Amino acid sequence: MLSWTKISWLRSLHQKKYRDAESVFLVEGEKGVIEGFQSTLTCQALFATQSFLQSHAHIIADLDVFEASADDLKKAGSFETNQAAIAVFEQYAQPENPKPDTDAAIYLDQVKDPGNLGTIVRLADWYGLKQIFLSPGCVDFYNPKAIASTMGSFAHVVPVKADADWLEANAKTNLIGADMQGVNIHRFIFPEHFILVMGSESHGINDQLAKRLTDKVNIPKFGQAESLNVAMATGIILDNWKRQQTA
Amino acid sequence: MLSWTKISWLRSLHQKKYRDAESVFLVEGEKGVIEGFQSTLTCQALFATQSFLQSHAHIIADLDVFEASADDLKKAGSFETNQAAIAVFEQYAQPENPKPDTDAAIYLDQVKDPGNLGTIVRLADWYGLKQIFLSPGCVDFYNPKAIASTMGSFAHVVPVKADADWLEANAKTNLIGADMQGVNIHRFIFPEHFILVMGSESHGINDQLAKRLTDKVNIPKFGQAESLNVAMATGIILDNWKRQQTA
Repeated sequence: MLSWTKISWLRSLHQKKYRDAESVFLVEGEKGVIEGFQSTLTCQALFATQSFLQSHAHIIADLDVFEASADDLKKAGSFETNQAAIAVFEQYAQPENPKPDTDAAIYLDQVKDPGNLGTIVRLADWYGLKQIFLSPGCVDFYNPKAIASTMGSFAHVVPVKADADWLEANAKTNLIGADMQGVNIHRFIFPEHFILVMGSESHGINDQLAKRLTDKVNIPKFGQAESLNVAMATGIILDNWKRQQTA
Repeated sequence: MLSWTKISWLRSLHQKKYRDAESVFLVEGEKGVIEGFQSTLTCQALFATQSFLQSHAHIIADLDVFEASADDLKKAGSFETNQAAIAVFEQYAQPENPKPDTDAAIYLDQVKDPGNLGTIVRLADWYGLKQIFLSPGCVDFYNPKAIASTMGSFAHVVPVKADADWLEANAKTNLIGADMQGVNIHRFIFPEHFILVMGSESHGINDQLAKRLTDKVNIPKFGQAESLNVAMATGIILDNWKRQQTA
C-alpha cells in the first residue's frame, strides 16, 4: 500500500506550481510510462502494480520503485480510469538560446486546451519535428491531460518556451500562419525553412503576431462549418508540407 | 426559477435511453442553440437566460420558452461551464433506404469517443458532406459531448444508422479505408464516388470490414508517433480528396 505522503505528493503534481517547483511531471498509464523510459528523460520514481513491475523488470533497474495497488494509483492519478503505472519524470531543460533544429517548427500562441496541445505534440512527432515552441499563456506542456493526449509523443518532442521577441529574432525564417484570407494551402509553395504559427482556439493569431507573418495560408472549405479545430488545421498544413517536400 | 421537474427532465436527456424514448436531444450553449434554430431541426423547448431571450426574441416566436437562471442551466446541463441556453430538439428521422447523397460519404465503425465523433461531424460539414453513417456500436450522435464537439455542425450533418450489410449493398461504390500497408494518400487517385470507412480508436477497421475495402490508403509518417487520432486521419484524407477534386 502506498503511504498517504506518497499519494499526496503525486496529487500535488497535478498542479503546475508544484511540478515547476521540483521541475518534474507525471506520466500516467503503461504506454506513456514505457515511452518515457525509452527516451532521454530521467525518471525519479515509479509507482506501479505488481504485474507491471514483473513484466517490465528490465527497465526499472536503478529506480525508486513503489509497488501500488490499482486503487492507490487511481487515488494518486488525475484520471478516472485505472492505470497500471504512474512515473515521475524530470522536466526537459529550457535551452539558453532556443532555435529550431529542424526545417520546420511549430510555434503555438496561447493555445489553452491541454487536449489540443497534446494532439499537436503527437502530430509534431508524426511529422518528424523534435520541438514545440510555446508562447507565454499556452497551457502547460506537462499538464496531465496534455501529456496523456500526446499518446507517448511527450517523450520525443521537446517543449521550448518562446515569445514574440524570439519569433522576431527568428524572422529570417519564414513565419507561416493560418488565415481565412491566406493562400489556398493546396497551391502554396512552402519555403525550405519555416515556423508555423498557430493561434489560440478562440482568438486565432493575435494582431501583433499576425503583422510579423511572412506567409498566410488558408485551408479551403466546402461546407458550412465555421472553422476547424487548431490541432486539425495544424495536421492538415503539415500534411500539405510533407506532400510537397516528398513530391 | 426552473421547476425541479424541468431540471430533472433535462438531466434525464443526458442519457441515451431517455433521449431515444422521446426522440429528442439537448443542445447546450448559445452558439449551438442558434445553429439549431437556423437549421431544419425542430425545437421542442428552450431554456435560456433573460438576456439570451431578449437578444434572440425573433427566433423563439412559437416555442415553449422557459426563462432560467445561469445557475439552473448549470444544474440542468451536462457541462461544468455556464451556458446561456439549453434547447431540446427533435432527433433526425432515420431514412428508410439510406444512401449517400454526396460523391463522398463517411462511415464510422465503432468510434467510441464522443469528442472524436463530434470532431468528425464538424469535418464532414467543413468538406461539404451532408451525412455521417454510423455503425452499431458507435457512440450516440446525440451524446452531449459529441454535440458540443461538432461546434454547431450537428445542425448541418444528418446521422444515418448503417451496418455491414448496408456497406455491402453500397459496395458498387468504392470503399476506402486507412491502413498502414495502403497506398500513400499523396499519390492515391480518388474515385469519383466513395465511402471512407474509419475504424475504432483502439482497433481500427474490423477484419470483416477490412475484407470489403476496395482501396487502402496510408498517411505517410516521418517521425516516431505510433498513430494519428481517427479524427485527424479523417481530416487529412478529406483534405487530400478535395485537393485532387479541385486541382
